[in-house]
Amino acid sequence: MKISVVVTLKKAVLDPQGTTIMKALKGMNFNNVHEVRQGKFFEIEIEEKDKKKAEDQVSQMCDKLLANLVIEDYKIIGSQ
Amino acid sequence: MKISVVVTLKKAVLDPQGTTIMKALKGMNFNNVHEVRQGKFFEIEIEEKDKKKAEDQVSQMCDKLLANLVIEDYKIIGSQ
Repeated sequence: MKISVVVTLKKAVLDPQGTTIMKALKGMNFNNVHEVRQGKFFEIEIEEKDKKKAEDQVSQMCDKLLANLVIEDYKIIGSQ
Repeated sequence: MKISVVVTLKKAVLDPQGTTIMKALKGMNFNNVHEVRQGKFFEIEIEEKDKKKAEDQVSQMCDKLLANLVIEDYKIIGSQ
């Protein structure tokens, strides 16, 4: 089973990298961009047929390694 | 309108960072992980009511700045 997760900075945390990208886009004449926030994306291939169990395991991986829960949130966006 | 995009390495491109994460997960007793691939995630807030037009603009941003199309693919995964 392949699980996709997105790890993003929490709303209250500044994202200087995203701001830089936004400025670059504005410099390229994309003037209607208001905000850019960057995050991480993980595609995890796991040997587990049961969707619920696979997602539970991936949640544990995020809690323990993939996300820093002090400043980041994660969200499982797809399972296939 | 807020558009979410995921930028991933093409299938044929090696992902040493993902491999390292996979090894770390195995070391933490997640033994059924087969593969991890890491990518980037962007959330772009754009002043454009029309979904189609907003997505077209974000595609252009990816073509020009956010993705390196030689080694990366991108996919718009959500609009709201």
